[in-house]
Amino acid sequence: MSTEDETTARTRAAVEAYVRAWATNDKEALLAAFAEDGVWIDPVGTPPYRGRAAIGGFWDQAHAGDQRFTPEVRRIVACGNEAILLFRMVVRNAGGGGMTIDVCDQMVVGPDGKIQVAKAFWDATCLGQL
Amino acid sequence: MSTEDETTARTRAAVEAYVRAWATNDKEALLAAFAEDGVWIDPVGTPPYRGRAAIGGFWDQAHAGDQRFTPEVRRIVACGNEAILLFRMVVRNAGGGGMTIDVCDQMVVGPDGKIQVAKAFWDATCLGQL
Repeated sequence: MSTEDETTARTRAAVEAYVRAWATNDKEALLAAFAEDGVWIDPVGTPPYRGRAAIGGFWDQAHAGDQRFTPEVRRIVACGNEAILLFRMVVRNAGGGGMTIDVCDQMVVGPDGKIQVAKAFWDATCLGQL
Repeated sequence: MSTEDETTARTRAAVEAYVRAWATNDKEALLAAFAEDGVWIDPVGTPPYRGRAAIGGFWDQAHAGDQRFTPEVRRIVACGNEAILLFRMVVRNAGGGGMTIDVCDQMVVGPDGKIQVAKAFWDATCLGQL
């Protein structure tokens, strides 16, 4: 039960790299977690960000203010080349206030260990105030 | 924030029909929640069940013993034609014991309100004893 096959372990590592990039506020690490042609949809139902340049644009937009992002992982379930990441994103303003978003990411990871697709599921019911 | 567009509402209804079918132990309702050519993968990484006949076979296999299945919904997030369903499946044996499985389903719902794809994410870390 404690052993994972190689694919599943690679998938889990990619998810962990994604979380670590948010936790350390490291844009380059975030982009490196994605494939060059990776796709990010956040939230699902809105237009996708295709490729690292577009994903970097999304990151920049999220960091345009003075917010700090702290991901609190609830669960990672890796199944072969796909995974679910449940986490609470804590978004703190410089003033001390902020919000939380309970996100469920679904990810597909390529044989190179890079995220091919990351889809973030959340809606108004997933938001909270700090 | 409390209004959903038509697609999202339809997606949510399909997920709720799926949950209700489990809660009421209703195989026909479960099959009716899926498109005729719907696909069920449980868990992700294993071969898919394609079409209602195959999905019915999966249901029969799950119910071959004397288990009772009780889904406890934790969260449903519908985003356009896709959804995440977080729930704990409580599986009780006639003897009183049993197990729990914390499942994250990702679903894609067609314009007809039927589930096109349901993918269940869970692994050994999601299992518990009753």
